[in-house]
Amino acid sequence: MSTTTAPPSPLDPAAIRTAVDQLLYGFLDEQERATPELPELNLFTGNLRDMLRAGGKRIRPILCLTGWHAITDRTPPPGVWRVAASLELFHAFALIHDDIMDNSDTRRGRPTAHRALATHHQARPDADSVGVNAAILLGDLALGWSYELLHAPDVTPAELAAVWPLLNALRTETLVGQYLDLTATGDPTADTDTAWRIIRYKTAKYTIERPLHLGATLAGATAAQLRCLTAYALPLGEAFQLRDDLLGVWGDPEQTGKSTLDDLREGKHTVLVATALEQATVPQQRSLRHRFGHPRLNEADAEQLRTVLTDSGAQAATEQLIIDKRDQALEALAATHLQPTGPFWLRQFAHTVTTRAV
Amino acid sequence: MSTTTAPPSPLDPAAIRTAVDQLLYGFLDEQERATPELPELNLFTGNLRDMLRAGGKRIRPILCLTGWHAITDRTPPPGVWRVAASLELFHAFALIHDDIMDNSDTRRGRPTAHRALATHHQARPDADSVGVNAAILLGDLALGWSYELLHAPDVTPAELAAVWPLLNALRTETLVGQYLDLTATGDPTADTDTAWRIIRYKTAKYTIERPLHLGATLAGATAAQLRCLTAYALPLGEAFQLRDDLLGVWGDPEQTGKSTLDDLREGKHTVLVATALEQATVPQQRSLRHRFGHPRLNEADAEQLRTVLTDSGAQAATEQLIIDKRDQALEALAATHLQPTGPFWLRQFAHTVTTRAV
Repeated sequence: MSTTTAPPSPLDPAAIRTAVDQLLYGFLDEQERATPELPELNLFTGNLRDMLRAGGKRIRPILCLTGWHAITDRTPPPGVWRVAASLELFHAFALIHDDIMDNSDTRRGRPTAHRALATHHQARPDADSVGVNAAILLGDLALGWSYELLHAPDVTPAELAAVWPLLNALRTETLVGQYLDLTATGDPTADTDTAWRIIRYKTAKYTIERPLHLGATLAGATAAQLRCLTAYALPLGEAFQLRDDLLGVWGDPEQTGKSTLDDLREGKHTVLVATALEQATVPQQRSLRHRFGHPRLNEADAEQLRTVLTDSGAQAATEQLIIDKRDQALEALAATHLQPTGPFWLRQFAHTVTTRAV
Repeated sequence: MSTTTAPPSPLDPAAIRTAVDQLLYGFLDEQERATPELPELNLFTGNLRDMLRAGGKRIRPILCLTGWHAITDRTPPPGVWRVAASLELFHAFALIHDDIMDNSDTRRGRPTAHRALATHHQARPDADSVGVNAAILLGDLALGWSYELLHAPDVTPAELAAVWPLLNALRTETLVGQYLDLTATGDPTADTDTAWRIIRYKTAKYTIERPLHLGATLAGATAAQLRCLTAYALPLGEAFQLRDDLLGVWGDPEQTGKSTLDDLREGKHTVLVATALEQATVPQQRSLRHRFGHPRLNEADAEQLRTVLTDSGAQAATEQLIIDKRDQALEALAATHLQPTGPFWLRQFAHTVTTRAV
């Protein structure tokens, strides 16, 4: 009984979630109190609170804390928690603006921000465009506040200087990744290179690598340790996105909170679809090109597309890729010199995110 | 000859402009160099460079330096220049997103960002929406970069801590001001209170008060000095916006770079229009309500509206208000205990912005 396979872990995802949410709710309260002469602000803070309460996995905050624990067994200082919360608020910004660009109606099982804000103004003839415009402003506020969270007395100048270059890179990568995504969308091709590039910037670095690096950097990680985390993060991020793409087509909307028509209707350029176009027979290709990205695509069209994605072998190939990428991530961990808590939880995480239904 | 009315001024607007622009161009170059694996970024940095080169008055950077010189005769350190440049990049963000919301086609005599980005993608059937979405991302990048500019080695932690709360307030005020503007637009009423509130947050504090406070705070201003600057800034900001509203209707598009149809077509809620509705005869009101905010308003309609705005006395009343507000601003200066360079230039500035044609 001198050792156990599971080290006593200070990493409790539910506890991280609670702590980060508390910090965020407290922060939004502060913003309201700071500008009593602008009560209209409460519409925006209220919308962000609703979005946080509605769900979300808090993956980035959890990985930020994981990055810390992968490097040191010290208790994370307040600065680490602030960075974790900042990532979640940045993510709220990214979702709000993405949902506008993708013209999505639901998120986390509720109306997206621009739809909720349109409903708030439903008495106006121009409610839809006011909703979109107000949601652009809401995203802008969330982006700015994600940095305001870090300019607090309990984040030291040294901590801020250490994390800022990473946050700047994260923002550029994510936004240019979103640009790659939006210019590839609606133009179905067998170009898997572009699909992989979108995944790298929009998901693998944004969701996995940068959050891990942020926590690890605050803990004083060496360059070699950061490289090991990257070797884990990039393939796992790819596997994460491939699972997301599958859930976007075959997921249970009750669980994912998203419609299974959105990605198909929008014509989202994914490895799944690019693979199907590469491997499909001519009639399958014709069916795919005819329906994919059609703005009025219905459930019957979606069912036809699902059949092509399955029959072409693209679905099975994607499932296999997820396993391969996950194994590659796990292998990278074996080579690291990290504190045991980190890899233990990173292994668990790799299994969870690649087999998830949510 | 022992004294002159004009003190030897270190404030040279043209030199400030050059210095700030150099800083911004250098910064954009750095962003490109930092991510060679994302050459798509150059589309965004290029668009920002074009926007800066096309014009703009650099009012906020100039006022930031003025705020510094109003408090001290020391040479401004690099941190003050960085804050000045940050304000200009924030302004680029605000214009890009505002132009999307207002559906404006021209800015500084050139296509707005979303129109330029639509042209870049003109081969696509969905060029217009890709243009808007890419411009949302461009604005997001500019907003993030306006803060990245401050996280540089030549901004000390003490300087950053001093200016950050002001920048946070500036962002909230400006974005909520924009929300007030967009929800008031298209709904012509004689409600001058709302029009004044929009001016206060979207212009007076954003354009004049906060930039002055930022420079003054870095120079170590006392609370009394900041209050004096506020007493100058708020009425002058109001006068500035009233002039802007008049130029939006009667300006020379060659000089302003903006169409004189946009505000009328959009139904922008201004003190000018609210005053016209308050003072107009019933037939004048009918004419105004019939045409104002009409999406297909043409030059003949605009001419009719201009006649109503003039004949109702609203134009003359607005001109008078500009003079009153400017005088109020100048009076506030007389009461201050500031370094002579500050008030000297603030007086000049008050005259320039209230009589400008650009």
